[in-house]
Amino acid sequence: MLKISLAQINPTVGDLAGNTRKILEYTALAQKTGAQLVVFPELAVCGYPPEDLLLKKHFVADNIKALDALAKKVRGISVITGFVDSDAGGKIYNAAAIISDGKLQGVYYKQELPNYGVFDEKRYFSLGKNPGIWTVNGVKIGINICEDIWVDGAVYQAQAKAGAKILVNISSSPYQAGKLKERQELLARRARETKKHLVYVNTVGGQDELVFDGGSMVISPDGAVLARAVQFEETLLNVDLSSKNNQVAPALESSEDIYKALVLGTRDYAAKNGFKKAALGLSGGVDSALVACIACDAFGPDNVTAISMPSPFNSKATRQDARALAKNLKIELKEIPIKKIFASYLKTMVPYFAGLAADTAEENIQARIRGNILMAMANKFGGLILTTGNKSEMAVGYCTLYGDMSGGYAVIKDVFKTKVYELARFRNSMSRTPLIPKSVLLRAPSAELRSNQTDEETLGPYEELDKVLTAYIEDRCSPQDMVASGMDAKLVARTIRLVDMNEYKRRQAPPGVKITSRAFGKDWRLPITNKYKE
Amino acid sequence: MLKISLAQINPTVGDLAGNTRKILEYTALAQKTGAQLVVFPELAVCGYPPEDLLLKKHFVADNIKALDALAKKVRGISVITGFVDSDAGGKIYNAAAIISDGKLQGVYYKQELPNYGVFDEKRYFSLGKNPGIWTVNGVKIGINICEDIWVDGAVYQAQAKAGAKILVNISSSPYQAGKLKERQELLARRARETKKHLVYVNTVGGQDELVFDGGSMVISPDGAVLARAVQFEETLLNVDLSSKNNQVAPALESSEDIYKALVLGTRDYAAKNGFKKAALGLSGGVDSALVACIACDAFGPDNVTAISMPSPFNSKATRQDARALAKNLKIELKEIPIKKIFASYLKTMVPYFAGLAADTAEENIQARIRGNILMAMANKFGGLILTTGNKSEMAVGYCTLYGDMSGGYAVIKDVFKTKVYELARFRNSMSRTPLIPKSVLLRAPSAELRSNQTDEETLGPYEELDKVLTAYIEDRCSPQDMVASGMDAKLVARTIRLVDMNEYKRRQAPPGVKITSRAFGKDWRLPITNKYKE
Repeated sequence: MLKISLAQINPTVGDLAGNTRKILEYTALAQKTGAQLVVFPELAVCGYPPEDLLLKKHFVADNIKALDALAKKVRGISVITGFVDSDAGGKIYNAAAIISDGKLQGVYYKQELPNYGVFDEKRYFSLGKNPGIWTVNGVKIGINICEDIWVDGAVYQAQAKAGAKILVNISSSPYQAGKLKERQELLARRARETKKHLVYVNTVGGQDELVFDGGSMVISPDGAVLARAVQFEETLLNVDLSSKNNQVAPALESSEDIYKALVLGTRDYAAKNGFKKAALGLSGGVDSALVACIACDAFGPDNVTAISMPSPFNSKATRQDARALAKNLKIELKEIPIKKIFASYLKTMVPYFAGLAADTAEENIQARIRGNILMAMANKFGGLILTTGNKSEMAVGYCTLYGDMSGGYAVIKDVFKTKVYELARFRNSMSRTPLIPKSVLLRAPSAELRSNQTDEETLGPYEELDKVLTAYIEDRCSPQDMVASGMDAKLVARTIRLVDMNEYKRRQAPPGVKITSRAFGKDWRLPITNKYKE
Repeated sequence: MLKISLAQINPTVGDLAGNTRKILEYTALAQKTGAQLVVFPELAVCGYPPEDLLLKKHFVADNIKALDALAKKVRGISVITGFVDSDAGGKIYNAAAIISDGKLQGVYYKQELPNYGVFDEKRYFSLGKNPGIWTVNGVKIGINICEDIWVDGAVYQAQAKAGAKILVNISSSPYQAGKLKERQELLARRARETKKHLVYVNTVGGQDELVFDGGSMVISPDGAVLARAVQFEETLLNVDLSSKNNQVAPALESSEDIYKALVLGTRDYAAKNGFKKAALGLSGGVDSALVACIACDAFGPDNVTAISMPSPFNSKATRQDARALAKNLKIELKEIPIKKIFASYLKTMVPYFAGLAADTAEENIQARIRGNILMAMANKFGGLILTTGNKSEMAVGYCTLYGDMSGGYAVIKDVFKTKVYELARFRNSMSRTPLIPKSVLLRAPSAELRSNQTDEETLGPYEELDKVLTAYIEDRCSPQDMVASGMDAKLVARTIRLVDMNEYKRRQAPPGVKITSRAFGKDWRLPITNKYKE
C-alpha cells in the first residue's frame, strides 16, 4: 500500500507565494520520510475562504501561475493540493490538482458546493463533473473535496464503485465545538459504506472569524481511526496504511478545544494582519480576565498590555482583582482613570443635559471614553485592541457601541457567559496556581457603569438566558417551542425582542472566533429592518 | 384585453400583517378603477429580502397563513402577489400566488435564483419547475419572477411559446444608478423576442442598504413603453393594454434619481426602525452639508438637529458656513465645542504621551469625542445619528472608526466625493436660492483635525482618486489594466493598498444606501485577512 503524508498546513488567504512555498517545504519534508504521496488541504494555494477575491480574474490567474510554478518543482513524489481552476469560458472551480514528475497530471473539480451557514460557494464556483480517479504508484485513488464527502451518495460512492482503493478528501472545514467528533463519525460511516481507506486532510489556522482546527485523519475500511493529527497545529502526519502503529493524537476535552480555538483564532488574526502586540481593557470581571489569559497564550505575556480605566463606579475589589490577575499573568498593567474626562463631558453637556435625570447617556459616555483611550493607546503605540464582550451580551445588546465594543478583534464574541466561566475555570486548572483570582469567578457580574449595578437584575440569570439564546439563535426555535420546553414565557419574549432590536449593534461589531454552530458572523444574516414579531 | 393595475407598493421585511393589509388596500383601490387583475411585487407578503428569517420554519408558516387569510378576502378581481411557499419536504420557494374568488388558484415558483452581488437566493430557495401559465378573465398569462426575465431563454420563452398573451414579471429589483434604463432595455428586448405584452411590477422602498426604486412598467410587443410608474413612490398604475393613452412617468435625470434614492433609503431606514428624528455633525464641509439636505428632505426640517462640534483646528469660515446652511435649511443648530474635553484627554494621557510627537492618536481622539457627543445626544433625546462619510473616504480609510463613523445610518457611504459635489449642486439647483453656501463648494476639502490639513495632499486629487476607485471596486480591474488605461502607477498602487488595508474599518461601518453597481455592503465580501498583492 501507499505511504502517505497528510500535510495539515496553515495557509494565508491571498498569500500565493507564501502558501506555495509552504507546500513545497512540506513536500520536501514528506519526501524525506519516504512518502509516495503528500496531500494538502482544500484551496491550499490561495487560502480558504478567498471570498470576493475570486471575482478578480487576475487573482485566479495568479493562483494558477503559482500552482504551475509549484508543479515544475515536484519530483519523486506525488502531490495533491487544492487550488482554483478556470476554464476557457471563464467559469471557475474549487479544484484539486494531482502533481508528479514536474507536471500537473490531472484536476478534479468539487461537485457539491455548500451555500449555507458561513459558506457562499455557489456565489463563485461552477459544478464539476469529472470522476476524480487517478493512479498513484500503481494504486487507484478517488479524490474529492470537503462537501463531496458530506452529501449522501455523492461522488465518493462512484469513485469507490469505480475501483478506487483509497478515497482522499481535502477539506477546509471550520471548527465549531464538537466538530471533530462529528467529522470522525461521518468519515467512519463513509469508510464502512464504501469499504475503502479514507484519507482526510483539513486546513489548520485562523481566517477572520473562522478557525480551521485540522484534526486530519485516516480511517480504515472498518471505520476505525488508523491515524489522527493533532488539532490546532501545523503538522505533517505520516501514515502507513498497512501498519497498525500510526500516530493517533488524543482527542481534546470540550473546554480545551474551545480554548485552543480562541487562542489560535486570535493569534492568526493578529499575525496575518501584522500585529505582534495586543492590548485590552481589564475591568476585574471574568470576561476581560479570560480574554487576558487567551491574549497571553496567543501573544506571550511580554506582548500584552492590560489597561484598567477605573471610574468612581468601579469597586475597590474589582480594581484589586485586575491588579492580581495582571501580576499572575506577568503582563503590564496601566491604570488610566476616566473620572476627569468624564467630568469634562458632563460639564460640556450641561447646556443640554442640565435638569435631566442621568440615564444610559451618561453610562455610555463612560464606556466610550474607555473605547477612545484604548484606541488612542493603539494609535500611539501600535498593537491590536481586543474587545472582551461575550455572546450573551452581544445577543441582547448589553454592550456599548463605540464603547466596550471598540477594538480590532472580539475574542469571545461567540462564547456565552456561562461558557466564559467554564473556560476561565478550565484555564485556571491548567496552571499550578490559578491565574484568575477566585473572587473574579464568585462575584456577581456587573458593567459598573452606575452604583450597585448587576447584569442579572437587567437580563435575568445567565443560566436561563443562555438557554433561551441557544434555542433562539442556534436551534431557530419559535417562542412557542421554547415555552413548551419549559422556558419562562416572559424571559423568552423579552430576550427575543432584545436580540432582534440589537441587530444594528452586532452589524458594527469587530470580528471574533466562531465556536458555535451559529455565530454572529457570516452564518447570521438577519435584516436590521425587521418587523417580524414571533 | 385585460385591465391591469400595477401595485408598486412598499412592504416592510417581516411585517406580515402590515404587508397583507397593504395588499388588500391596493386591491380594493384597483377594483374601484375597474381593473380585472392587480399585480404586486416579488415577496410582497414578507418583504424583500427576508434573509435568514427564511431559515425559521415558523416565519415561512406565518407568511403562508397571512397569504391564505388574504386570499379569502379577494373577490371580483384577480391578484398576483409574491410570497414564500414551502412543500411537504420542507423545501421553500420564492413564489407567486394567483388568487381569485376567495382562494389560491395556483402558485408559480421562481426558476432562476440569483446568487451574486447582493443576492443570496440559493442559500434559501429551491428551484421551481412548473410552467407558470394561468388564464385570467379568458386571457392566458405567463407569470415569472425577477431573475426569470433576466436570463436568456429562461421560462418566459416557454411561457410565450405555450401561448401566453401577456407575460407578467414580479420583481424586487434594487436600485443602482442607471438601473431603470437597463431594465427597460432588457424588457423591450424580451417583448420583441416573444412578441408579447410585458407587465413588470417592482417593489419600492428602502430595506437596510437597498433601495427599490419602483419604475414599474408595461412594454408592448414592439418594445415600446406603454406605461411607466413614477420612481421612488408607492403608486397604483392602471393600464389598459389596448389604449395608447396610459400614464408614462418621465424618466429622472442622473443626479435626481440618485438624490431621491438617498432620501428614500434614509427615510425608510428611519421610519421602519421607529425613528422620527435625525441628528448629524455639521462641519461646514460639503459631505455633511449634503447629508443635512437629504435629512431635511427625508425627515422634514423640524425633525433634524445639526450639531457643530468645533475644535481649535476648525476655521472660522467653516463654522460660519455651518451656521449659514442650518439657517437656509431651517434646522436647529447646536454648538458643542470639544476643546475642553480634548484638553482633559491630553492631560489624562500625559503619563503615556508626554514627549511624543502629536500624530494620528491626537487626531482620532478629537473625532471620537465628536462621536461620543453625538451618541450621547441620541441616547438622551432619541433620534437617528446620520454619518456623513463618503465612498472615497470609506474606500481608502480616510475616516475614524468610532469617530466620524459613529452613527446608525451612513447616508452617502456609496457616493464618491466627486459625486457628492454633483449632488450638492443638483440640490442647490432645486431651490430658488441655493441651500448650500457657495463657499462650501469652493473650499478645498479638509478633515480639520490638525492645522492647514487638506484631504488632497494625503489622497491626491479626488478626480483622479475616484477614477482609480471605480476601476478597482466596480470594474475589478487589475493594477496593470488601470495603468495601461492611463492612470498614474503610483496613485494606483497606493490606492489599492489603502483600500485593502482598510477593510477592517468598513466591516464596522453603519449601513447606508447602495447607489453603485458595487457598494461596501452585501455585494462586497472581501476578507479582512488578505495577503494578496496585486
